[in-house]
Amino acid sequence: MHRFGILGTGRIGGMHAGLVAAQQDAAVTWCFDIDPSRADATAARVGGRATTKVDEVLQADDVDAVLIASPTNTHVELILRSAEAGKPILCEKPIDVDLAKVEMCREKLEGFNVPLQLGFNRRYDLSHRAVQQAVASGEIGPLELLVITSRDPGPPPPREILEACGGLFRDTTIHDSDMARFILCGDEPVEVFAMAENRVDPVFAELGDVDTAMITMRSKSGALVHINNSRRTSYGYDQRVEAFGAEGMVRSNNCRPSETVRYSSTATASREPLLYFFIERYKAAYEAEIRDFIDCLKAGKAPNVTFEDGRRALILSEAARRSESHAQPRTSNGYFVHLGIIQLDGGSNAVYLFSEGL
Amino acid sequence: MHRFGILGTGRIGGMHAGLVAAQQDAAVTWCFDIDPSRADATAARVGGRATTKVDEVLQADDVDAVLIASPTNTHVELILRSAEAGKPILCEKPIDVDLAKVEMCREKLEGFNVPLQLGFNRRYDLSHRAVQQAVASGEIGPLELLVITSRDPGPPPPREILEACGGLFRDTTIHDSDMARFILCGDEPVEVFAMAENRVDPVFAELGDVDTAMITMRSKSGALVHINNSRRTSYGYDQRVEAFGAEGMVRSNNCRPSETVRYSSTATASREPLLYFFIERYKAAYEAEIRDFIDCLKAGKAPNVTFEDGRRALILSEAARRSESHAQPRTSNGYFVHLGIIQLDGGSNAVYLFSEGL
Amino acid sequence: MHRFGILGTGRIGGMHAGLVAAQQDAAVTWCFDIDPSRADATAARVGGRATTKVDEVLQADDVDAVLIASPTNTHVELILRSAEAGKPILCEKPIDVDLAKVEMCREKLEGFNVPLQLGFNRRYDLSHRAVQQAVASGEIGPLELLVITSRDPGPPPPREILEACGGLFRDTTIHDSDMARFILCGDEPVEVFAMAENRVDPVFAELGDVDTAMITMRSKSGALVHINNSRRTSYGYDQRVEAFGAEGMVRSNNCRPSETVRYSSTATASREPLLYFFIERYKAAYEAEIRDFIDCLKAGKAPNVTFEDGRRALILSEAARRSESHAQPRTSNGYFVHLGIIQLDGGSNAVYLFSEGL
Amino acid sequence: MHRFGILGTGRIGGMHAGLVAAQQDAAVTWCFDIDPSRADATAARVGGRATTKVDEVLQADDVDAVLIASPTNTHVELILRSAEAGKPILCEKPIDVDLAKVEMCREKLEGFNVPLQLGFNRRYDLSHRAVQQAVASGEIGPLELLVITSRDPGPPPPREILEACGGLFRDTTIHDSDMARFILCGDEPVEVFAMAENRVDPVFAELGDVDTAMITMRSKSGALVHINNSRRTSYGYDQRVEAFGAEGMVRSNNCRPSETVRYSSTATASREPLLYFFIERYKAAYEAEIRDFIDCLKAGKAPNVTFEDGRRALILSEAARRSESHAQPRTSNGYFVHLGIIQLDGGSNAVYLFSEGL
Repeated sequence: MHRFGILGTGRIGGMHAGLVAAQQDAAVTWCFDIDPSRADATAARVGGRATTKVDEVLQADDVDAVLIASPTNTHVELILRSAEAGKPILCEKPIDVDLAKVEMCREKLEGFNVPLQLGFNRRYDLSHRAVQQAVASGEIGPLELLVITSRDPGPPPPREILEACGGLFRDTTIHDSDMARFILCGDEPVEVFAMAENRVDPVFAELGDVDTAMITMRSKSGALVHINNSRRTSYGYDQRVEAFGAEGMVRSNNCRPSETVRYSSTATASREPLLYFFIERYKAAYEAEIRDFIDCLKAGKAPNVTFEDGRRALILSEAARRSESHAQPRTSNGYFVHLGIIQLDGGSNAVYLFSEGL
Repeated sequence: MHRFGILGTGRIGGMHAGLVAAQQDAAVTWCFDIDPSRADATAARVGGRATTKVDEVLQADDVDAVLIASPTNTHVELILRSAEAGKPILCEKPIDVDLAKVEMCREKLEGFNVPLQLGFNRRYDLSHRAVQQAVASGEIGPLELLVITSRDPGPPPPREILEACGGLFRDTTIHDSDMARFILCGDEPVEVFAMAENRVDPVFAELGDVDTAMITMRSKSGALVHINNSRRTSYGYDQRVEAFGAEGMVRSNNCRPSETVRYSSTATASREPLLYFFIERYKAAYEAEIRDFIDCLKAGKAPNVTFEDGRRALILSEAARRSESHAQPRTSNGYFVHLGIIQLDGGSNAVYLFSEGL
Repeated sequence: MHRFGILGTGRIGGMHAGLVAAQQDAAVTWCFDIDPSRADATAARVGGRATTKVDEVLQADDVDAVLIASPTNTHVELILRSAEAGKPILCEKPIDVDLAKVEMCREKLEGFNVPLQLGFNRRYDLSHRAVQQAVASGEIGPLELLVITSRDPGPPPPREILEACGGLFRDTTIHDSDMARFILCGDEPVEVFAMAENRVDPVFAELGDVDTAMITMRSKSGALVHINNSRRTSYGYDQRVEAFGAEGMVRSNNCRPSETVRYSSTATASREPLLYFFIERYKAAYEAEIRDFIDCLKAGKAPNVTFEDGRRALILSEAARRSESHAQPRTSNGYFVHLGIIQLDGGSNAVYLFSEGL
Repeated sequence: MHRFGILGTGRIGGMHAGLVAAQQDAAVTWCFDIDPSRADATAARVGGRATTKVDEVLQADDVDAVLIASPTNTHVELILRSAEAGKPILCEKPIDVDLAKVEMCREKLEGFNVPLQLGFNRRYDLSHRAVQQAVASGEIGPLELLVITSRDPGPPPPREILEACGGLFRDTTIHDSDMARFILCGDEPVEVFAMAENRVDPVFAELGDVDTAMITMRSKSGALVHINNSRRTSYGYDQRVEAFGAEGMVRSNNCRPSETVRYSSTATASREPLLYFFIERYKAAYEAEIRDFIDCLKAGKAPNVTFEDGRRALILSEAARRSESHAQPRTSNGYFVHLGIIQLDGGSNAVYLFSEGL
């Protein structure tokens, strides 16, 4: 029986806690939250003891692993403290929105040998994974074009969440950057270009953020990647991946609650709105993610989604952000001057060419 | 917390036990099976005590309800004993394959006031249910045509299961007969006609059974119903429902494990084989069925799928069987003479016109 | 250049005339209609001379073939006169609605050796044809289940057309009976059963006709066939064919004017209403039909759709009509007694068992 | 009757000639080609006189309009000579691959008042047009994201055609640039960015061309546009358009020869390869294009697709070409330095910011 301490029992932490409890070979033994009522409620629902002191969890003998689902700006601290305590870690994405903090965390982690899995849940979606497998197996030949559509349903999240989330590229696109890396199968992106807009809600512009974007990447081998994002659709959570090569194309299409199809005098073959949002759309993926983490621990294998995956996805998102931020209004005629193509070395270091003075 | 005794812990009983255990407000407290190793294994997995004596379960104070998933020929006995013990019952379909036994059971049950839900799990499938709701709400106008496609994947079940199952009409078609009644929303079938064949495997003919069939029904109001069945497909479990009326059509299409779509030089838009069989295809429906049973118990409401639903579906399947069985080889030229249209009164009594001497 | 005389230049005759004129190697040289203005209008549009005297066409040297698209009750006379005149014939379906007239025509035609193609246009539809080819080639294994959905869009045709059309089975179902025979590839139907209703418009009941039907057939080899018909849909012309065998399933789905797909807050993946009716839906099939007729004439080969095909489809429709007509209200309780299973010999003679006195 | 002179009777000219001849109110009276056998063959097939002297056509009294389908590098000359002769012009795209020649042609045309329609056939495709109409009508709200997938089937065209075609951006992408402008409904692109690769065939690199590309554009109002191109697919001609706004999404999907769908043990819902190439895929669009040209002439209205449309699409393709061409191998580490974002004024003048010295 693998005993989990849940660090952070808000919406997503509560979901994870329920999924852990549903495993035959796992249990929740501790629920930590700075809000005692939240910790209590989760513990009452899934089992385990509630606490507002993280050290109670980290020092407990009946904790075999921790699941970090606290606010993003606490991830690095909790990762390091959990590593010090020797507890295997499943941490929600992102590691942090600040790349410097991530680099610092990376260095400090080198001293520990603690399994750490990063929560890129979409890698566990059966449809997206089938696309990755089609590329990995050579089914479609070497990857040439990769098109990722990733649009959140509206309305926008509350302002306080938006303020802390790091902006569209580091909050939302980071999933797509990771998906791109996942499907590229080691053929790392070396160029990033982004165009973005404010179309959805004034709150995004007020926060200096964007809400609508297109990103282009080039991989080392010359695969081209397109990502498009929006913070709002009218028709549900739009999540698609399309991989194209000389031998064929594989696509991961959208999911709906059922297979119902309608025919009327105005429309035929109509289906429902898409599943509303990530907890519904990726429920099976979240469960498979926890399952895989437990299976790796049991087998003594390293986790399949790593800290380095989290760091590189952030580097790509940061590149997109920098690329986009070089699109400045041009006083003479009101159009944009946009020069921010960002070059990466495809390896472990980010080289933002533009910031080097081009 | 609703405490369940599982009566019968074979494949389907074991599945039910797991689904009960996964409910937040339910638990398995007893696992009964005549095979002690099966009872033990299930109890070890989902909790509760194992026993080979059914009375231990029926007399236990910590049993709020029983779930009957034993072999079909024991259902009637276990229903009656559970009713005597005052335990609410969720019983797998069918009640029995012998209509006389069902009528007897019905009479005896009149003396008890115990909630009994019959396990027509497909009523809880979101896609099929949406078809029913479209009819019930008037979305497509009064129902005129109902087409049910229901084909099991191969290979055929083991011979011993086939011997006990009551034949295609009472084992498989009974689900479709119930689906027809569910979607007809009280507009009961009054005519049944069936044609059937042996195309799949010699075992069916050896057992005097058929493996491929088409059934036609007419409802009181004049809705026409078509069901087609096969014991074997090459492409997975084919489960479709199509309802047609003056205002439109609603269809429930097949389910697959993912939304992956493939394009190659030989085929485009290709999808995977369908989900293989009922435990995979109707997993969510089985869970919703148990959920609904618990919710009805909690609310003190009568179950939504009743003994009478089980009895009437059997009457329809029996009518199809009798209709089909009147197709006899005609010595003079080898063709069939088939005169078995069966008339029902649409109410509580089956009137098999043919058997009355036409 | 193949020179055609068009016999009958109403709506469908006018369409055929245009399709003939569009062929590179064919021309319309004569347009006959009893209504001179109609003949004139067609001739002005597609070329050729107009006439109200059919013999002018039949005796003309510049007529290599005739296309009969006059009212159904004139088909037999025009077939025989064209045959006497030695002109190859492409005749719209049906030959006639009266089987006795068809049998008479068949006997008289034996004296002539004139190519005659019957206008079962749906055999030339690429999607339906692909189903037939999948059966013929063995792709899906021996045919076991065939499901044909064939529903006309509303509103119903004018009363005078309905009065002459021979009723649902001989006007509409005859296409589906032919489709069944086409896909059965020589494995002739030997049993026919029909249930029907009046649900669409009172005019059908007033004419002693039905408007909604389900037909079941059994072939010699034991393939089961289901056809469902309605005289009215709200969503366009619904034309589907599904063939099932041990190795797989092939379906011919509906056609729409475009590949446009819509997503909104209420529906996703929505498509347009289906193509409205036969001239739009089967435009390419009508053209391929004429093309095939010309190609056969050029090659000196017998036409691919024969008088016998027309006769046998009528026999099946007649069987359905007789089967259905034995469903009579039963005075005692208002339900139906329906005993009309019709047996055929699968060969050239119709044996209506019921009418023989069962 | 509108009498056409066809200028250039190669593959596409021959197709156009056939479509003109098929119109009820149009005829081909002259077929010009420098290859007399080609001119003769087309004239024999569709009517009219053959000639190798273009002036015979331009001076003929029985020519009401010309259709220019000669090699691209002769378009400007033939446009100007036809305009001088006062003949209305339907000219295949592109005007020319050399923007300077196009600007020259534009100036000279100002002296004439001759109707000129440019052959952007895809604007007449019913599915793509429905997307444009959904944007124009406000159905999806203001356009925010536009994704155009446009991939030719392989193998690549012959080397001599590739040498003259102007490269991927001016030969292929120009259609997509026009589609973007069509759907943007006057909201002109003001920024263009392109990444491209050589992945398909060595011939493209040998010619200094690319074969795989992603283009991003921003419109004046802030709509973002993505185009992806490949010179080769394994599964047919891939032509899709997706428009997204606050109120919904409309997509134009791919076309196939039929609606046949297959189910087997390895794949379900499989469809055929896509229609192979432009003559098959856009047959109806080519016909509608000619139809619209004739209708505009008849009504005395200016054509709906103009010389200016051809010029602006070329400016966008040229911008993409220049953007891409600034991606140069970087000697130090082999990666790319790519700085070519191109700015346009969204009006009648192209301002290539990069070439101005950034």
